[in-house]
Amino acid sequence: MTDPDTDSDPDADTDTAASLAERVRAGDLSLHELEDHVDADVAARARRLLVEEQSGASLDSIGAYGFDAAAADANIENMIGAVQIPAGVVGPVSVDGGAADGDYYLPMATTEGALLASVNRGCSVIDRAGGATARVTASGMTRAPVFRVDSVVEGEALASWVRDPDNRTKVREAAEATTSHGELKEVKPYVVGDSVFVRFAYDTKDAMGMNMATIATRAACEVIESETPASLVALSGNLCTDKKPAAVNAVEGRGRSVTADVLVPREVVEERLHTTPEAVAEVNTRKNLVGSAKAGSLGFNAHVANVVAAMFLATGQDAAQVVEGSNAITTIEVREEGLYAGVSLASLEVGTVGGGTKLPTQSEGLDVLGLRGGGDPPGSNADALAECIAVGALAGELSLLSALASRHLSSAHESLGR
Amino acid sequence: MTDPDTDSDPDADTDTAASLAERVRAGDLSLHELEDHVDADVAARARRLLVEEQSGASLDSIGAYGFDAAAADANIENMIGAVQIPAGVVGPVSVDGGAADGDYYLPMATTEGALLASVNRGCSVIDRAGGATARVTASGMTRAPVFRVDSVVEGEALASWVRDPDNRTKVREAAEATTSHGELKEVKPYVVGDSVFVRFAYDTKDAMGMNMATIATRAACEVIESETPASLVALSGNLCTDKKPAAVNAVEGRGRSVTADVLVPREVVEERLHTTPEAVAEVNTRKNLVGSAKAGSLGFNAHVANVVAAMFLATGQDAAQVVEGSNAITTIEVREEGLYAGVSLASLEVGTVGGGTKLPTQSEGLDVLGLRGGGDPPGSNADALAECIAVGALAGELSLLSALASRHLSSAHESLGR
Amino acid sequence: MTDPDTDSDPDADTDTAASLAERVRAGDLSLHELEDHVDADVAARARRLLVEEQSGASLDSIGAYGFDAAAADANIENMIGAVQIPAGVVGPVSVDGGAADGDYYLPMATTEGALLASVNRGCSVIDRAGGATARVTASGMTRAPVFRVDSVVEGEALASWVRDPDNRTKVREAAEATTSHGELKEVKPYVVGDSVFVRFAYDTKDAMGMNMATIATRAACEVIESETPASLVALSGNLCTDKKPAAVNAVEGRGRSVTADVLVPREVVEERLHTTPEAVAEVNTRKNLVGSAKAGSLGFNAHVANVVAAMFLATGQDAAQVVEGSNAITTIEVREEGLYAGVSLASLEVGTVGGGTKLPTQSEGLDVLGLRGGGDPPGSNADALAECIAVGALAGELSLLSALASRHLSSAHESLGR
Amino acid sequence: MTDPDTDSDPDADTDTAASLAERVRAGDLSLHELEDHVDADVAARARRLLVEEQSGASLDSIGAYGFDAAAADANIENMIGAVQIPAGVVGPVSVDGGAADGDYYLPMATTEGALLASVNRGCSVIDRAGGATARVTASGMTRAPVFRVDSVVEGEALASWVRDPDNRTKVREAAEATTSHGELKEVKPYVVGDSVFVRFAYDTKDAMGMNMATIATRAACEVIESETPASLVALSGNLCTDKKPAAVNAVEGRGRSVTADVLVPREVVEERLHTTPEAVAEVNTRKNLVGSAKAGSLGFNAHVANVVAAMFLATGQDAAQVVEGSNAITTIEVREEGLYAGVSLASLEVGTVGGGTKLPTQSEGLDVLGLRGGGDPPGSNADALAECIAVGALAGELSLLSALASRHLSSAHESLGR
Repeated sequence: MTDPDTDSDPDADTDTAASLAERVRAGDLSLHELEDHVDADVAARARRLLVEEQSGASLDSIGAYGFDAAAADANIENMIGAVQIPAGVVGPVSVDGGAADGDYYLPMATTEGALLASVNRGCSVIDRAGGATARVTASGMTRAPVFRVDSVVEGEALASWVRDPDNRTKVREAAEATTSHGELKEVKPYVVGDSVFVRFAYDTKDAMGMNMATIATRAACEVIESETPASLVALSGNLCTDKKPAAVNAVEGRGRSVTADVLVPREVVEERLHTTPEAVAEVNTRKNLVGSAKAGSLGFNAHVANVVAAMFLATGQDAAQVVEGSNAITTIEVREEGLYAGVSLASLEVGTVGGGTKLPTQSEGLDVLGLRGGGDPPGSNADALAECIAVGALAGELSLLSALASRHLSSAHESLGR
Repeated sequence: MTDPDTDSDPDADTDTAASLAERVRAGDLSLHELEDHVDADVAARARRLLVEEQSGASLDSIGAYGFDAAAADANIENMIGAVQIPAGVVGPVSVDGGAADGDYYLPMATTEGALLASVNRGCSVIDRAGGATARVTASGMTRAPVFRVDSVVEGEALASWVRDPDNRTKVREAAEATTSHGELKEVKPYVVGDSVFVRFAYDTKDAMGMNMATIATRAACEVIESETPASLVALSGNLCTDKKPAAVNAVEGRGRSVTADVLVPREVVEERLHTTPEAVAEVNTRKNLVGSAKAGSLGFNAHVANVVAAMFLATGQDAAQVVEGSNAITTIEVREEGLYAGVSLASLEVGTVGGGTKLPTQSEGLDVLGLRGGGDPPGSNADALAECIAVGALAGELSLLSALASRHLSSAHESLGR
Repeated sequence: MTDPDTDSDPDADTDTAASLAERVRAGDLSLHELEDHVDADVAARARRLLVEEQSGASLDSIGAYGFDAAAADANIENMIGAVQIPAGVVGPVSVDGGAADGDYYLPMATTEGALLASVNRGCSVIDRAGGATARVTASGMTRAPVFRVDSVVEGEALASWVRDPDNRTKVREAAEATTSHGELKEVKPYVVGDSVFVRFAYDTKDAMGMNMATIATRAACEVIESETPASLVALSGNLCTDKKPAAVNAVEGRGRSVTADVLVPREVVEERLHTTPEAVAEVNTRKNLVGSAKAGSLGFNAHVANVVAAMFLATGQDAAQVVEGSNAITTIEVREEGLYAGVSLASLEVGTVGGGTKLPTQSEGLDVLGLRGGGDPPGSNADALAECIAVGALAGELSLLSALASRHLSSAHESLGR
Repeated sequence: MTDPDTDSDPDADTDTAASLAERVRAGDLSLHELEDHVDADVAARARRLLVEEQSGASLDSIGAYGFDAAAADANIENMIGAVQIPAGVVGPVSVDGGAADGDYYLPMATTEGALLASVNRGCSVIDRAGGATARVTASGMTRAPVFRVDSVVEGEALASWVRDPDNRTKVREAAEATTSHGELKEVKPYVVGDSVFVRFAYDTKDAMGMNMATIATRAACEVIESETPASLVALSGNLCTDKKPAAVNAVEGRGRSVTADVLVPREVVEERLHTTPEAVAEVNTRKNLVGSAKAGSLGFNAHVANVVAAMFLATGQDAAQVVEGSNAITTIEVREEGLYAGVSLASLEVGTVGGGTKLPTQSEGLDVLGLRGGGDPPGSNADALAECIAVGALAGELSLLSALASRHLSSAHESLGR
């Protein structure tokens, strides 16, 4: 926190930071141990001094962050400050969701010019059409440890053990004992040679849940190891799958599977998007369906990841999970009433508690949606967040597909100065 | 810019913002037109007022950004302020790259606790091992428009036309006339029914190049449309593939294909990572190779996306391109000398000019690496950035795989308070 | 049947055939209506005449088939005769399976020289190692119709309807009423825009089960259509997935998921395969794991499809389902005792009743394995067939990987004259 | 050859076979050595005796094959006889191809009832529409060895070496020296950690070319090994990719990339297929595009593999390559004139010389198409075969999609008695 209105003595802090930096240079201290000796803001200052000296950079802007460094200690180590990502809003857009309900400004943080303009145009069209509907159609945070067995004889025995109802109860009790909120929903074994993967799926309510799932699964693994000959090799065996593009997520879902859709009257398409339902449908088929098919893709959409990334950053989600957020299919069809557009995100991993959601700017981002903290009932805030992101993605798809249909993708970028 | 030391009159700005907000509420103005009437900072303030009123949120933290809003006008529309992402450094780590050379602190911005601690541990091990090597092994930014043809007779004719050397020259000249730096490296046609995709690959030097490629390809498409019966349907036909998980990128690359590797002596593995080369190799095989295989994944790694996302945010890259950044394969093998570890990222899309790289905190992030702006020769800064990210990813893989081998993944998270 | 020992009059048949052919030429009859007028063998002869005349081909060999044409009327229409595929055996090889048990000659039909020699070498090595173990670790034949709904509101309602236990009971009863053997094991809904896919999985005992699953699912769909607003678009919505490469099969399985493995003593590897466990493991890692990863593959093996295809042809399986049969992962590791090798086929669709299994040569192929017809208990013959194929695949992998390790792949082909 | 009209003495052969079988049982001879002692037919008989005795099977039908066993010695080892697959024809259908031209009966061998009836219906519709067009849009048989390097420094150096024009010339000369027909078209390096894959693509004219490519690549690898520090690990590194489902084939093609299409007048759709262009397009979109997308598939079609398998068996192709043959995208669109339907097979590996094409029934299958042996110009017969298979696949898609649109998939199967 570099706010001048605190009662700390800036000059004293500067001296302390310089002296700490000197001790790191001298090898007396490690870069990551500074918080053991001074408060987190001074430690960050000391690191800036070291990095500035080594690199010749000036880190004044990174150092001008607006929160107590100590408040970020659950979010980062070796802190030097903060990066500022421009933030804006689109909307308001009307959402008729299973959990979300009402008119929402959607907060987005990005450095990609033209993105908010494009999504905003889509929101405006959705609103003209009476708003979007959205629903979470499946949910569950997964973790899949991998075990070593001696041979497939043991592997099959482990799979059978896991499928036995009594054993599932034991496993569930062990897993759920580690968490006050989480519930184990499903356990499924997969045998590959002398490796057995067991995929656990949890209801983690308003938490994104990766950490909750990891801790619960560790407890479950202890039961498995104690009752079977299997030996745990890794608590995550990549069949989860976290932060990698993977068909298992695109097919079976991870976090929330959520769809948003809208029916846009033909005249709105023509007047506001300067194209026709037929032209948009053709772009969607040739680009998002056939083009992605030809590309060997798991993402059959135009730029869902743009919206997911921007809303993730604005609301404190994990930026690396944009990867799974891009497993989305956009469908467009011409109906008598006009243009039907839907976006289905198979694996959107979101939470309104924990992780980056507590940081000042991020919690304000959630406040813009009215979705900070735990929901009532539990899980409803994260559901609503998923629905809002899906509606943002829908707006982005509508706008970009229409722009392509009108052939002005790159001119839009040009005139917006990127 | 909310810095109190500017010569603007804050009270006057507040009044102006309030009056603008009122006009938006009254329907006289659109949210995105405010910059037509006042400067960008006042416009952002007006939007905050509107959003605060509608949502009940307080946006003081988002409003406390440290740059002139006008300076971000190429990066965002409908700006309300900025999101602050905690930033830190890991290292220094020694990199022997094709373009990068020396000891680097790696800047990372994230909200995921334990990440920097983990990567830092990996950097420390790499340094003990004498540093990492890294090379860009392929590069090219791609754009693939889709054309409509009448039938496969026309489709085959278009493919042949594109393969003709004289026609390629025409296409290249048209494309390169739109850019001072970019060079067209490859053009390849793909026929699917009555759609033809033409994949263009460019050398975009130090720019990530998506926009340059789009503009150049538009010019190339005009040549194709004027000389063949084909009709452009969309300037991007998803075979590019931008911001979607896609095998075409994992196989053929997009942006930079870059590998970092290191040979870690056995005693360093044992003393610093508390495991053995054999145990790490087993985790890598069962998790990253077999587990990802079973998951139908394009990412055969543990958490490369974490490092890519954090370094992308810290250096002004496009957060949505973390998707492609996760197309990475980690290889581990036991050698006589110890543990060989390599990480190969197939499609890392980075730039040191343009996009978000000019923003104050982000350009400082590049300064930490000494890689702000255009390189000498052109392209070398972006190459070096790719190599540094690959080394960061390598450090992250080494550390997490070792932690899994030692079975303390979730306890690490717990003790770090997430 | 062209056996001269039947009591039909060949000359009369020839005349009849010629006259029928003439009527087809004249447009009085369709090619596929001939069986309405004469017996199946004469109809086939008439077609040969027509085709010979039109193409100039002589079809004597195709006409020299060894069964009553009428006996194939459930297997083919517009029959002209039969194609003869050379058939051989490898082994005997010892199999310790969940259903298979004993020493088996494995029947294979192929036109690819060197294949049986290679697999036979692998069988011999497996036998020296004491035989292979094999287990079916999961099973279920799937069919996934696609329904049209109005919007995601209806889509989510349909998904909830399907998940309701009472509704599942109704659906199961309807499905199982169509079959004497089949059991509905699982029903799972997937929502994409205004399409809802419902994946049904059945235990089809000794039948491959595609047809049983289709008929049962049709009945289930009638229940869904009558009780919900959803409208069936196609009885197969490609999420099944039949005869296409698809991650859903590689991950979740289809038909039988089966693994075979073996532990080969080091000296056997050295003496019989002329290589070392380490060299074979290296080939497997670089080729089958890393190479397939880089290729964006769902098959992490060397040539499992060769064995699957050859044993499918020899035992009357559906040749097009070789596609799914290739979704296999080969794992090799160096153990203290020698070389561990495993092959896991995720989606092997086999049956010992129905389809092509009743044809004379094919049922003899099943007899070679002692697996013709229904098993006791039901399903055990198809399980055993799956295990035998997996052991054949294991033998093929062992042999080819070893050959590659010894660098004589192409010389083997050359010396075998292909 | 078990034809009674040969001049061999059946009784003597029986005795010889029995005595050989006894020697195998006694361990004096191996199963695969019998041809060293007697002619191939007697050897096959001896094996039948052994297998019959061990299994209790009677192998009379398998033994009733219609060719000299010696003529199959390049196609199989350990021969016991032949499997007979019912064969039929569909058509004739008019093909306007780049190489094929005229009316063709398409030969198919299958055991799946209803298949030929379905494809025949499609052919009839195509003919009513004036015939199909077809074109090979790309071709090249690939082989991709994998090399071991020390680190990415060597890996990048190898990639650069391969890209150097002088080195490519050396490599090409070495490769082409091994073949009288083949031409090396492309060489491309891919670096993954300390593995380097080099993908070679050849024009193999009328041969499927896998063996030619393997032998040529082996020679090329010798050049690479002699001039660089790289060491060959496996002549096939799975980036080829042969007989595994792999995106690299679906994207870049392997063998022939071929498309067939047709424009069916609306009245023909309605009268002959009992449905509408709109209904067929809807089935295609929801099933073949969206359904396959959701399945994580590389095959966006209904049942192309059925036709590929059946025509492969009838013409002596490699049954295991049905795997790649299923990498096909079906596109359907409603046009003013009616229904446009296209099928694009990315990786159809076919030949009219070598492999199984010389066997009696298979060469007759090629004769039905007029495509036996080498074409004029070289390659044209294999091109035409690819085009004919694509047209068969198109007919199959048209028919099945229409049947689904009319909801009688399973009833068709039922009435055809499967």
